[in-house]
Amino acid sequence: MIQIAVLGYGTVGSGVVEVIETNKTDINKKAAEDLSVKYILDLRDFPGDPYAHKVVHDYNVILNDPEVTVICETMGGTKPAYDFTKQALLQGKSVCTSNKELVAAHGPELIRIAKENHCNYLFEASVGGGIPIIRPLNYSLTAEKIDGITGILNGTTNYILTKMDKEGAGFEEVLKEAQEKGYAERNPEADVEGYDACRKIAILSSLMSGKNVRYEDIYTEGITKITAADFKYAKQMDKSIKLLAMSRDTEKGFFAMVAPFMISREHPLYSVNGVFNAVYVHGNMLGDSMYYGRGAGKLPTASAVVSDVVDCARHQGKTIMCFWDEENVDVTDLSSAERKFFVRVRDDQREAAMAAFGSLVEVNVGIVKEFAFMTQVMSEKEFNEKIEKAGGCLNRIRIMA
Amino acid sequence: MIQIAVLGYGTVGSGVVEVIETNKTDINKKAAEDLSVKYILDLRDFPGDPYAHKVVHDYNVILNDPEVTVICETMGGTKPAYDFTKQALLQGKSVCTSNKELVAAHGPELIRIAKENHCNYLFEASVGGGIPIIRPLNYSLTAEKIDGITGILNGTTNYILTKMDKEGAGFEEVLKEAQEKGYAERNPEADVEGYDACRKIAILSSLMSGKNVRYEDIYTEGITKITAADFKYAKQMDKSIKLLAMSRDTEKGFFAMVAPFMISREHPLYSVNGVFNAVYVHGNMLGDSMYYGRGAGKLPTASAVVSDVVDCARHQGKTIMCFWDEENVDVTDLSSAERKFFVRVRDDQREAAMAAFGSLVEVNVGIVKEFAFMTQVMSEKEFNEKIEKAGGCLNRIRIMA
Repeated sequence: MIQIAVLGYGTVGSGVVEVIETNKTDINKKAAEDLSVKYILDLRDFPGDPYAHKVVHDYNVILNDPEVTVICETMGGTKPAYDFTKQALLQGKSVCTSNKELVAAHGPELIRIAKENHCNYLFEASVGGGIPIIRPLNYSLTAEKIDGITGILNGTTNYILTKMDKEGAGFEEVLKEAQEKGYAERNPEADVEGYDACRKIAILSSLMSGKNVRYEDIYTEGITKITAADFKYAKQMDKSIKLLAMSRDTEKGFFAMVAPFMISREHPLYSVNGVFNAVYVHGNMLGDSMYYGRGAGKLPTASAVVSDVVDCARHQGKTIMCFWDEENVDVTDLSSAERKFFVRVRDDQREAAMAAFGSLVEVNVGIVKEFAFMTQVMSEKEFNEKIEKAGGCLNRIRIMA
Repeated sequence: MIQIAVLGYGTVGSGVVEVIETNKTDINKKAAEDLSVKYILDLRDFPGDPYAHKVVHDYNVILNDPEVTVICETMGGTKPAYDFTKQALLQGKSVCTSNKELVAAHGPELIRIAKENHCNYLFEASVGGGIPIIRPLNYSLTAEKIDGITGILNGTTNYILTKMDKEGAGFEEVLKEAQEKGYAERNPEADVEGYDACRKIAILSSLMSGKNVRYEDIYTEGITKITAADFKYAKQMDKSIKLLAMSRDTEKGFFAMVAPFMISREHPLYSVNGVFNAVYVHGNMLGDSMYYGRGAGKLPTASAVVSDVVDCARHQGKTIMCFWDEENVDVTDLSSAERKFFVRVRDDQREAAMAAFGSLVEVNVGIVKEFAFMTQVMSEKEFNEKIEKAGGCLNRIRIMA
C-alpha cells in the first residue's frame, strides 16, 4: 500500500483524488501496489466532500507520518511549496508535482536532494499537462543527442491565437471572451506575456542540456501586440501565428526564447489549435518527433501527477535517473540567431525600408498606409540595425524556418 | 560495461552500431554504464567494415559468452529469430528487438520467459520506428484507462496515399515511383495489403488491453483499391484518405481493424504525411494525445533499439513491468461497429441506392456515370445489407468519426 498526501485541494489536487478513485483497478495493477490518499492538505475545509475527513491544515501531520511515502504537490507557486517539498524529500518522501514555477526555479536542487535521500522528485505534469513529455525525454529518447525543442506550451494563448486566426478577431476581444469562458485568468499576464511558457521551456531545455537553464535567462515576448491585421498577412502567406517556446543547442551557442512566430501550414505545429499543446523535439538520429495533447485541465494534469506516483511505487527506495545538474547553462544572447522576419512599416517608410533591407518580398493584403514584407534570413542583430535605420516600424514577427 | 551482441547486420543492425558509436558520450551517461558491441551475428562477412572483426556466424558463440548481457535482434521474421530470442532469454540475456512479426506472433510468451529469467524483452522499435510509443504506453499513461488507439503505422502506404492526394495520381503509378525511390519493397504486399500495420496495431492493442490481441483476428484491408477518383471526392469533402490501424475497447466489445479511412482536415492525423507515422491514443482522463515522427528508417529505428538497451542497463537483473498476458482477447466481429461510409455506385443504381440508404448526402465532382454519396451512421452489418440491396457498388470507404 502506498499512502499518499495531496497538497492543495484545488483543481489539480481534487483531480488527483478523482483519477486515483476512478481508475483504481488499472492504476493499482500498474503500480503493483494499492494507492491510497491518506491526507489532503488545504487551508479550507470541505464539508460534504467525500474526502472531507482526510483534510488536514497542518503540514506536520503529513511530514511526521511515516506511512506517507508519496506527496502530490499541486499547490502552485514557490511559497510554501518549496519548503514543503524540501522537507518531504529530506525525509525520504517522494514528491510528484504539477508546479512549473517551483520546478523551473528550484528543480535541480530538489532533484539532488531527492537523490541524496533515495526518493524521487517527479514533474511530468509541470509541462504540457497530460502530454507525456518529461518521461519520453528522460526514458525514451536516451539514444539521441537532442538539439532542438519547439513547443506550443500554453493553452490560453493558443486558444486566443487560434480564435484570432479562424475568426479574424482582435486580441482584446478574444481575450475577453476567453476570460468569460474560463480559458483565461482574470489577470492573464502570466499567460499572454509568455511567462508560463517560459517556465515550461526552461524545464524542457534543462532536460535537453542536462544542466540548468535559468528561466530568467530566456528571452520572452508575449502575444499582446499581435493584431487582426497580422493574421491577414499570415493567411496571405499560408501561415499562422503561434506563441512558440523553443531552445536550440547549436555550434553558435545555446539559444532559448518565447515569442510569437509565423509558421507555415506544412509544419506539424501549425495544426495544433485551441487549448491543445504540442512539443516538437529534434534528435540527431531520430530527426523530428512530436508529442501532442491537452496541455492543461483538471483530469489531464492530474493523470500526469498520478503517473508519477505510479513511477514512485515502481521505484521505492530508488531514485529514477534524471539529468538536470545545478550548473547553469550559458544561454546565448539572441543577437546571432538567424531567421526571416515579417515586418510592417508605415507606407511613407517604404523607400527607407527597401534601402535598408535590400532584397525583400512584399506582402499585400490591401491594408493602406502601410508596407509589409518578409526579409531574407539575417541575424537578430542585423535585423534590429536595419529596422532602426528604416524607421516607422508598426510590427515585426519572427518567421519559423 | 554492457556487452552487446547485434543479430543481423542489415539496415537496422548496422544502425544500432552507428547510433551507439555516434552518441557514445550521451548514451553511456544515460545508461550509467559503457555500452560496447562485442559481436555481430550475420551469415555474411563484411570485409573492410570497421566492425568486420566482430562478425560471427555461429549464434552459440554469443549464447555461450557470459559477458554478453544484451542482445539486439534486428533480423526480422520469426525464423530463426524466435528460437534465438528464446534461447537468449532463458539464459537471462535481455533482448531488444525491432522485429514486429516476432513480437506480434510470440510477444506474451517471450515477455513471460524474460520475467521468469529476470531479464527483459523490449520492443520499442517494433512499432512506429523511432517514435516513442511502447514506453509512453507502459510507463507514462499508467493513470489512464486507454480505450482507443488509432495509428498511421506504415510509412510506405502513407507515402503512397499522400502522393495520390497531393498529385492526383493513381495507385499503380505512385507505387512504381515509390519502389524506384526505395520507399516501397519490390514485393509490396506486406505494406499495401495492410499486413505490416496489422502486426503493429496487434502489439499496441495488446498493451492497451493487457491481454493478447492476435493479429490473425484483426480485420485487415489494404489500399490497393483506392483510386485517384476517390481522392477527388475526398478533397470535395475536405478530407483525405489514410490507412488507419485502430482498436477500440467499448461496451459492445473489443474492435480492431486496419483499413483505408476518409479523415477530416480537422483531425490531427490528417496532417501526418509522407513517410511519417503517428499514433493517436485516447484515455479516459487525458482525452486525446498523439505521438508523431519517422516510423521507419535506419537511424530512427536503431535509436529506439538502443533506447531499449539503455533501459536494460538501468534495470539489470530486474524485469521492467509490461502487461501483456498470454490470454487472448476476444476480438469482436466488426458487424456491430458503427460509422458513416462513403460510397460510389454505378449511376444506373442511383434510385436503388437512394431507396436502400434513405437519407444520404450526395457528393458530386463531375465524374459521369456514377453516383457518390455519404451515408448516415450505421453498423457495418447494416451497411453491407443495404449496399448489397442497392447493387452496382464501385467502391466504398469508411469515414473516420
